[in-house]
Amino acid sequence: MSSHRRFIEGLLFTDFYQLTMAQLYFHHGLAERRVQFDYFFRSHPHYGEHSAGYSIFAGLEWLLDWMRETAATSEDVAYLRSLKGAAGNRLFDEGFLDWLSANGTMTGLTIRAVPEGRVVHPNVPLVVVDGPLAMAQLIETPVLNHLNYQTLVATKASRIREAALGAPILEFGMRRAHERGANAGTRAALIGGADFSSNIGVSGLMGVRPKGTHAHSMVQAFLALGGSELDAFRAFADLYPDDCVLLVDTIDTLASGIPNAIRVFEDLRKGGHIPRGIRLDSGDLAYLAIQAAIQLDAAGFEEVSIVLSNNLDELVIWQIVTQIREEAPRYGVDAGRLVRRLAHGVGTALITSTGDSALDGVYKLVAIDEGGRLRPAIKLSESQAKTLNPGDKKVWRIYDRRNKATADLIGLADERPGGDQPIVLCHPTDQPRRRRLAAEDVSEIEALHQEVFVDGCRVGEPPDLETMRARRVADLDRLDPGVKRLMNPHLYHVSLSERLWESKHALVQRLRSEIMSGARE
Amino acid sequence: MSSHRRFIEGLLFTDFYQLTMAQLYFHHGLAERRVQFDYFFRSHPHYGEHSAGYSIFAGLEWLLDWMRETAATSEDVAYLRSLKGAAGNRLFDEGFLDWLSANGTMTGLTIRAVPEGRVVHPNVPLVVVDGPLAMAQLIETPVLNHLNYQTLVATKASRIREAALGAPILEFGMRRAHERGANAGTRAALIGGADFSSNIGVSGLMGVRPKGTHAHSMVQAFLALGGSELDAFRAFADLYPDDCVLLVDTIDTLASGIPNAIRVFEDLRKGGHIPRGIRLDSGDLAYLAIQAAIQLDAAGFEEVSIVLSNNLDELVIWQIVTQIREEAPRYGVDAGRLVRRLAHGVGTALITSTGDSALDGVYKLVAIDEGGRLRPAIKLSESQAKTLNPGDKKVWRIYDRRNKATADLIGLADERPGGDQPIVLCHPTDQPRRRRLAAEDVSEIEALHQEVFVDGCRVGEPPDLETMRARRVADLDRLDPGVKRLMNPHLYHVSLSERLWESKHALVQRLRSEIMSGARE
Repeated sequence: MSSHRRFIEGLLFTDFYQLTMAQLYFHHGLAERRVQFDYFFRSHPHYGEHSAGYSIFAGLEWLLDWMRETAATSEDVAYLRSLKGAAGNRLFDEGFLDWLSANGTMTGLTIRAVPEGRVVHPNVPLVVVDGPLAMAQLIETPVLNHLNYQTLVATKASRIREAALGAPILEFGMRRAHERGANAGTRAALIGGADFSSNIGVSGLMGVRPKGTHAHSMVQAFLALGGSELDAFRAFADLYPDDCVLLVDTIDTLASGIPNAIRVFEDLRKGGHIPRGIRLDSGDLAYLAIQAAIQLDAAGFEEVSIVLSNNLDELVIWQIVTQIREEAPRYGVDAGRLVRRLAHGVGTALITSTGDSALDGVYKLVAIDEGGRLRPAIKLSESQAKTLNPGDKKVWRIYDRRNKATADLIGLADERPGGDQPIVLCHPTDQPRRRRLAAEDVSEIEALHQEVFVDGCRVGEPPDLETMRARRVADLDRLDPGVKRLMNPHLYHVSLSERLWESKHALVQRLRSEIMSGARE
Repeated sequence: MSSHRRFIEGLLFTDFYQLTMAQLYFHHGLAERRVQFDYFFRSHPHYGEHSAGYSIFAGLEWLLDWMRETAATSEDVAYLRSLKGAAGNRLFDEGFLDWLSANGTMTGLTIRAVPEGRVVHPNVPLVVVDGPLAMAQLIETPVLNHLNYQTLVATKASRIREAALGAPILEFGMRRAHERGANAGTRAALIGGADFSSNIGVSGLMGVRPKGTHAHSMVQAFLALGGSELDAFRAFADLYPDDCVLLVDTIDTLASGIPNAIRVFEDLRKGGHIPRGIRLDSGDLAYLAIQAAIQLDAAGFEEVSIVLSNNLDELVIWQIVTQIREEAPRYGVDAGRLVRRLAHGVGTALITSTGDSALDGVYKLVAIDEGGRLRPAIKLSESQAKTLNPGDKKVWRIYDRRNKATADLIGLADERPGGDQPIVLCHPTDQPRRRRLAAEDVSEIEALHQEVFVDGCRVGEPPDLETMRARRVADLDRLDPGVKRLMNPHLYHVSLSERLWESKHALVQRLRSEIMSGARE
């Protein structure tokens, strides 16, 4: 594999039609024609019985890394040269392959994008790729591959974090992840809401301490060799006296695991160490958390964390927290304190985004140069909602007097909303619906795009993890609570400027009438 | 990234607790103790309203590739050396790090496994890892990461293929895949049922011609520059006269796309070329397929394929095929012929296994050497069904007189079922339920495991794609149709031998009584 890794993860990490189209553009003199493509998604993740009201954008830096490192190699070209069509003829000719060898790089592409970690919404262009048609087309698949998945996972992580009411979130999903996608998933989880991850490599890369406890197999191994659960716990505590989190459900959580953990914790305390936690991985986690708190408190370990795991997601966590709040007082346990001492280990549901395992992000041609001017391109669709917003565009976030985000506004690139004028927000499909925001009702108009990639290089330094997390926290703070609700969230407005609305509808009308009149034949 | 790739995809592509446990085993003189771990899954994928009745095993060769290429590097060791615990102390000491530097390789591990492409069932050990405890434990995460995902996707691909009744399946999912997991997903899809993929790199690696058509953006680009859909189609046909598949829904499928495609096909035919197909990517695909067939047949293009795409999965394909069978005769179209000329482009649902995005595969310690003899290890569980099958085991598939697979039998490694004796199949949890198969009712007893990895090397050559596909086809042919049903499939029996059943229950009883009597404290 490793000898093939560069081949399967390089320029040919893309769909076949990107290459057949690139060759066509080359032969029509269009390969280097300047175009713009928009990356956006059409709806927030919908998990079946519940749906996100916002998403967290992620994946951009790893896409830019891929772009910086990728160019057509001689192996790529040799492979394309070898491909034969149905009639035995070569599919790619030397003219195109020569062009690809010389021009198959990202150096002509410019990218502006919303920064990673930010709250984002449907239909807003999150990434705008500007440059020669053939290469801008060719990277469609890698753009979608990098951004769809990380945005999906960052969004799930944010929901999980919100459900946990500030308790730490540990990402544990590597074993159920989609193979090497695990690494991108861990990164996105750390941006979106996970505090730590068990994934050592990516934790190291991102500058976060990897976290974990031990497996059932460690206790099993001691048992099989004639030892006991207590022996296993003691061995672990001896080696990690200041970092001791014990998995207590290998034999019997309440009758064996927790009492044994408490004995070990007492020894640690005598030795001047602070025991860290226990982990519950099966059974009724809400009930067991309460019982664990009772036993730990009785032994004077009020500060020991209770780590929960086993098929957690945002709804299960929300249910557990709710159940603890209802049940704990009956046992004389302070529910608020118990909820704060929890930590949640989340695996499959986070890294595969259970319920909705793919974001519906798309990458669409929106403009093409003609005579030095970008001409809007459009694609009609069955539904008005799916009809593209054409042309060279920008995006602004509008904050109201409470300093809460009230709408994202998509407009033409040369617009400058604001000043003394009211802002007019056009509903994207419903023509009569317009919302007018008086200047005095607007506290801020924030441009969302930054230029991040020019001439094959990243512009400036990539943000560190803390910066991306801080963006998320700030954006969530400025988002209405109704939009953040786990189930049936309130709809956030994404609107078009009047000029964009008019430009789009003129283009739609013209295309429709041309089709009707057969003028295009 | 690329400089970090080896770091995040090497030995530290694992969960943190694998390293803390490895150090513990090292300090207890257990790091090189011989053990066995089993990889198995507990249930077939369940997609919400439907469930698989069998799975297709995949991912093994890429796991073995990872193992052959992976060993502790000085960068790995330096990173572990840098890690500090909560009290600021180092977590990994030089003794362990020296051991890891010298022994952090796969050379001590032996693997026997079910071959890739085979039909497999829950609780059957698919991979048995035998070797030193610390390294066998350390690879838990990569084992699960590689095998869970590819088996998940191969299973989905097989269901999709069955639903399509032999029509070609094209894997198109890269853009919605979980980042670089796309490559493993394409491989698994090709093993499990996809005929072709749009993923160029992996198609090349696996020796399959990559396939694709063109994107809407190609037609859009021609329109934006003042050309027409017909111009775009002609340009494509000129360049690929023998491989021409046209996407006909950019403007209007029936009014514009198909009539324009037919004009282009007529020109191709005049030039001595064979037009290949059209692709429908939106709208009511069953209705449009019938209408497309009518138009194509009227123009004399009965052999042109009709490629369907747009959120297809096994149930949607099954519904489309059913609808065509009901509706086509009303339009005078031969339904059987139409179903056979279809091809199905499947994206998201296949590569992310929509409905169930993770296989619940686990990796469990089942035996540990004591005095030169493997001693069974067990883990009790809340439910009998989740209690491990302990010890060094083998697996056989039993075929009945019709030469259909009737059960998988898990037994002890030194058993030899068969001969003149009847085969006794014990229900894994329900003690009284035993099934007896007389020798004359058994046509074949097939051992399922092969030794594939010894001393850090693969045993023999890895199988090529055709071999893995042939295994799948042969296994499906010998599987009862009820087990292959898309919804509510019939349950295939996975049974224990009498000796394994007795050994397991003796171990459970002993462990229970020891816990009850507190003997283990």
